[in-house]
Parts: sequence; structure tokens; C-alpha cells
Amino acid sequence: MAKIVIKFGGTSIGSIDRIITAAKIIKKKLNKGNKIIVVVSAMAGKTNELISQSEKISKNFNKRELDVLLASGEQITSALLGGALQEMGIKARSYMGWQIPILTDGEHNNSRIVNMNIEKINNFILKKGVAIIPGFQGISKDGEITTIGRGGSDATAVAIAKMFNTEECEIYTDVEGVYSTDPRYFPKAKKINKISYEEMLEMSSLGAKVMQSSAVQTAMMYDLPLHVRSTFSSAKGTKIFSSESIDYSKTITGVTYSKDEAKITVLGVQDKPGVAADIFEPLEKHSINVDMVIQNISPDGKTTDLTFTIKRGDLNKTIKIIRSNKKNVKYKSISNDKKVSKISIVGAGMITTPGVTYKMFRALAQEKINILAISTSEIKISVIINEINTTKAVKKLHTVFNLD
Amino acid sequence: MAKIVIKFGGTSIGSIDRIITAAKIIKKKLNKGNKIIVVVSAMAGKTNELISQSEKISKNFNKRELDVLLASGEQITSALLGGALQEMGIKARSYMGWQIPILTDGEHNNSRIVNMNIEKINNFILKKGVAIIPGFQGISKDGEITTIGRGGSDATAVAIAKMFNTEECEIYTDVEGVYSTDPRYFPKAKKINKISYEEMLEMSSLGAKVMQSSAVQTAMMYDLPLHVRSTFSSAKGTKIFSSESIDYSKTITGVTYSKDEAKITVLGVQDKPGVAADIFEPLEKHSINVDMVIQNISPDGKTTDLTFTIKRGDLNKTIKIIRSNKKNVKYKSISNDKKVSKISIVGAGMITTPGVTYKMFRALAQEKINILAISTSEIKISVIINEINTTKAVKKLHTVFNLD
Repeated sequence: MAKIVIKFGGTSIGSIDRIITAAKIIKKKLNKGNKIIVVVSAMAGKTNELISQSEKISKNFNKRELDVLLASGEQITSALLGGALQEMGIKARSYMGWQIPILTDGEHNNSRIVNMNIEKINNFILKKGVAIIPGFQGISKDGEITTIGRGGSDATAVAIAKMFNTEECEIYTDVEGVYSTDPRYFPKAKKINKISYEEMLEMSSLGAKVMQSSAVQTAMMYDLPLHVRSTFSSAKGTKIFSSESIDYSKTITGVTYSKDEAKITVLGVQDKPGVAADIFEPLEKHSINVDMVIQNISPDGKTTDLTFTIKRGDLNKTIKIIRSNKKNVKYKSISNDKKVSKISIVGAGMITTPGVTYKMFRALAQEKINILAISTSEIKISVIINEINTTKAVKKLHTVFNLD
Repeated sequence: MAKIVIKFGGTSIGSIDRIITAAKIIKKKLNKGNKIIVVVSAMAGKTNELISQSEKISKNFNKRELDVLLASGEQITSALLGGALQEMGIKARSYMGWQIPILTDGEHNNSRIVNMNIEKINNFILKKGVAIIPGFQGISKDGEITTIGRGGSDATAVAIAKMFNTEECEIYTDVEGVYSTDPRYFPKAKKINKISYEEMLEMSSLGAKVMQSSAVQTAMMYDLPLHVRSTFSSAKGTKIFSSESIDYSKTITGVTYSKDEAKITVLGVQDKPGVAADIFEPLEKHSINVDMVIQNISPDGKTTDLTFTIKRGDLNKTIKIIRSNKKNVKYKSISNDKKVSKISIVGAGMITTPGVTYKMFRALAQEKINILAISTSEIKISVIINEINTTKAVKKLHTVFNLD
């Protein structure tokens, strides 16, 4: 007799057959006496198709009209799922963002949900109706259609879980949950049964493939448990909780990696306060995300070398910006390495376990892998290594930290 | 400085390139100082695609959800056209049915527009903005998305012309206008420059291919002139007026035909009052549309033969219904001919020109074409002939009535 939110991602409702599968999952839960609100994404590929149509008209397509355009994707799946449930004899009804309404604040294409009217839908689900809500969208206080950014259907589901005070929030997707490392390339990867919000966020690409980060952050803020699971299997997925609710038998929860990195060293920079800020400010203005930063110890107290990592695709642009900024920031030369990757171990358990860093470094040394840069947080240690060693490093760390 | 409505049909905005072409047409009219409201259909094929998706779920898809589903088609084209106009530096804005609002009455899938708020849009177009309205849809007084039947974007355009009291209503489509007969098969067919509402309605398939009949009826009711023209050429199209505004130099405006007919004769029916009604009532109940009816003169005053035409696809069903109704309507036998076609000459000019019927029959006799049935109205004469003679008959009549 719980009140639950069920969210279906794009692949989970990517065809008529899959919409019918989703309807069957809903029916099973309804028959157990649950009160159900469903949130749907657009069919897989639909949002990209609409964006590409808009880009054929303009690379800078009007943001207001883009929201009107994109909102149609979830409108379609809401209606199809509504019809599919009714065909099974279930009382169901789609509610567009403006019909509820779901009120948003902020700019077009990047709004956030600030409030929604719960009365109409609460009445409907109390009478055994299944309410279907298109994710990703709402209306502004001026009555304009707004969207809340890519992957925003997760955020809609979390917002609804919060505002309707539901007992569960299930995120149905095309994978069985979050894995200890990428299961496509590492057959020893294991599904993680329980993970904390913080770990989920630190899992970067591994986590992001499964659920949108800002939705996880929102869930963390309100301490709303999430359950990520597959539409195509009945297996339990990954439950996401606050770390206090988890007993850590393992120090490390997962090993993630990214081959999409590049390393830049600016040599012979003046060693004075504010020089790093002077280098990074113009990069930030050009939306270049600087990840790890190492400032070497200055041998002469006058100049130093500054090393940092960025996304590989930003490499040339970054070098160009630093060069064009030479009148503000003096340096001798720039060196770069675009064949590096980043390996991270993530685990809330490392907070209470000493020696994790040492264990990681020794493991890599055993494989004769040179560490080019290091960065650490409370629950994550990342190193930059030569890209060629990526697989070897992930396998070794997965084994050393008992994840196989 | 006129206020005009421009409606683009599905093929006129069936691709991004065509949407840009439509935007250029709008820009030209705007630059002449016009105040413009645009009505758009869904992209050609889109509505059928959505219907076919719904039918994969249910042949009897929930009508409320079907409206939510189908309304997305025009939402998409409204937004794309809005973006295309802005890309050209034109102030433009799409208004969904619920944002205006366009109020409708009646059932889902078959509503009709009863009112709309004109203030917001009038203010916008007064300030040189182009307002874009998705055709075919509105909202009910309960705030539900409704649609107004297939081809309903024409009806939206006419309703807007009426409620905004516009000077012009232009219907952009993929043909240059209405033709004196089907130009695909008869190279001598000529575009009609001016036609009355009544003629347009009587042109059946020739007219219906160009514009939705109920929209023409509405325009007739309010005496709103229409201009049907091609998006792909700058040629003037066909103007549709009340017949009083037209000088008829020709008796006949067009020759239409349909090969989709069948003829049934019920032989030896009792010649008593009400027998025709007894035969046709069960047909009507099964949605079989009886077109022409001829009751032969009874030779003995006791029995007679009843001939009528129906759509060819309904033939077997019709015979079955008459047979199963034999306990109510006695008859000797049923004969049928499914290889017949219907040829019609249409023209408001025939009201004031005697001898048109005679001229038609003599022309067909000259071609040795036997007439199987006849029906006449004020501005239309139809005959049923053997299907094999269709082309010969259309060509002859087109020539005889000076349409070549």
C-alpha cells in the first residue's frame, strides 16, 4: 500500500513493445495495492532527433521554441503509455506539465522544478488511477513550456518523490544497476547492491550512465532512497542511500576510468600568489573544465611548473588560450600529453580504512605503471597514467580491492 | 497593412527545407506590412505515424490519450517554424492551444472550436510579431487537450480568420489550386481561378484533396473568402468566394469522377410506402453510405426494383445486411455491378443555363456510353456509367463544356 514513483528511461520505452512491457511492470505493482505515479522520458533517440532538426534550422535555435519542440517527446510517450495501461483495463491518465502544473524557475532549456500542485494527482492515484507525468518539463510562472536540461526526467522523478512524499522512487533503465567497473570491458565487474549518494556521484561515468548526477544530488539533499534497476530483467538493481545506512564490508566500491583526458604542463611560470588563478580564469570563461592540478615545488623560489588535466577535446583550445594570455601570465614553454587516462577508486569505506592510497600506489607499481598526477578526496583517489596502461590498471585495482 | 491568416499543410512543412521555404513566404508578407497569424499542420505523414503507433497498442486506443498523442505533431512544426523565423531575424512565437486558449466543445478526437482568446495574439501581431498556432487542436473547458478531426488544421485557420476578423485566409498546400478535373490523368485540366463555396463542396474528391470540406462549409457560413495556393510556386491559386461574387463565363466549373463505386439492384420489392426506408435503415446503422437511389416505376403496382450506389468496399457487407433483413423486407433477388464509376459535372453557372442535363447526356451518347443512373442537384449532375468508359466520359465532358 505504498505510494511510489516509477521512472522509465528512453530505452525502457523506446518502442511500442517496450511500452507494453513497462505497462506490465506497472500493472504488477498496482495489483499489489500500490499508489503509482509514473514519470517517462522520451523514446530513446527522440530528443536527439528533435535537436538535430532544430540545428538544421539554426545552431543557435531559439531557446523558448526549443523547449516547445523538445517537450513533445515526453508528451508522446506519456500518451502511448496511458493508452497501453487503459488497454490492460487499468485506469490511467497522462498529465502534461501545464496541466498539473509543474512550476519551474530559471532559463529556458535549463530550468529547475520549484513547485507542483499535488492535489489533482493525489486524488487520482487514491482512486487506483495510475498518473503518468512527462519528465524533463514544466511551465514557468508566465505559462511558458520549460525544460530542465538533458537527463532531466530523473530530476522530475526525484522532485515528485519529494513533493508527493512517496515511499519509493524506482528508476527503470536498460542496465541492472551500477557496477564495480565497466562490465562491457571487464567481465569481473560486479553489480553493486547498495551505494551511497556520494559514491554514486564520484563514480562519474559509471554512475552517470545509469542516472543523472543532479538528480542524485537532489535525492541526497532530501535523503530520498533511490532504486535503479532494469526494465528487461526482474533482478534487483542498485539501491542508493545515505552512507550512514550502509554497512561497508569493502573499502572500495568501484574502479572507474576515463580515457578522455589530456595533461598540460606550463613550464617556468612566475611563482607568486594568484598566478594559477590568472591561468585558469580565461579557461573557465571558455567553458574548459580543469580537473586535476599539481603545482610543483619551486626550486629557485622564482619560477615553477604548473600541471593540470582537461578533457582531450579541449587540448588545442586550451593551449591557444594560454598563449594568447601571455601578456598577463609569463612562462617559458608549454608541454602536453594527450595519451593519458584517469583511473579512480571510489568508496565511502576508505574514510575509516587507513592505507588505501598506499595500497593503490603499490598495486600500480607492481604493474610497472608510472603515476603522472594524483588527486584525492574523502571517498575517491584518482591518478593520471599513460593511456596504454588503462586496462592493466583497472584489472589490478579491481582485484586488489576485492571487487572481482 | 492587412491582418492575414496563412495556413501551411503537412507537405508544405514536411521537412526542414520546406519549413524554411514557408518562413521565407511569411517574411515576404511581413515585409509588406501585414499582421500575420500562421496555422500549421503536422509534418506530412506524422499524424499517420502516431496513429499507427497507437494502433499497435490498441485498435481502440483511449480517445483522451490519442488527443494528447496527436497534438504533439503540430506542436513540433509550430516550434520549428518559430525557430526558423527567429533565425531570419523575425519576431515570432508559437502559441499552443492551451496557451491561447482555443476552447473546444464535443468529444475527444472530434471536437469543434467554439471560442478563443484573441487579446494576447492581437497584441503580439500588432507589434510586428508573427504568431504561430498549431492547427487541429484546442482544449476542452476541463483543460483537456482535444483535437478536431482529420484535416482539422483547415478548420483552425478558418476559425481564426473569423475570430480575428482577418482580411485574408490563405491555405498553402502542395497543389496550385482546384482543377477543372484531375490534372494527374487529364493533361487538359485547367486551374480554376475562382470558385464558389458550394461548387468547392460539390467537387468532392477534387476539392477534398485541396481543402477539408467542413472548413469550406464554415467559411461559407461566415462568408470568409479563402485562397488556396501552392507553397512551391508563386502562381496565384484558387480563390473561394460566395457565388454572388463570381461572374460565371462558363456553365460548368469542373468534371469530377470516382471509380470507387458499386451499384446494387434489389429486384421484386413490394411497392408500398416505407419499403425504401426499411432497406436503408440497417445500412445506415452499419455506417454504409448510400449515394444515388433510383426507384423504378412499378409495372403491376405490386412490386418494383430499387437501384442504389454505394462505395465499392461496402458491397459485400451491404448484400449480407439486406439478406439478413429478409424477414422485414421481402424481395425476389439482388443483382450488383461493382465495375461502375460516377461522373459529375459541377458548376454554379448551370442554375441560370437551361439544357445542361440534355447537353451532358447527348455528349455521353455520342461516345456510346450508357447511363446506368442519374442524380441531380442545383449545381451538380452525376451519372453512373460502366467503369471502363471513365476516361472517355471525363475527356468528352471537359471538352463539351469548354474546360480544355
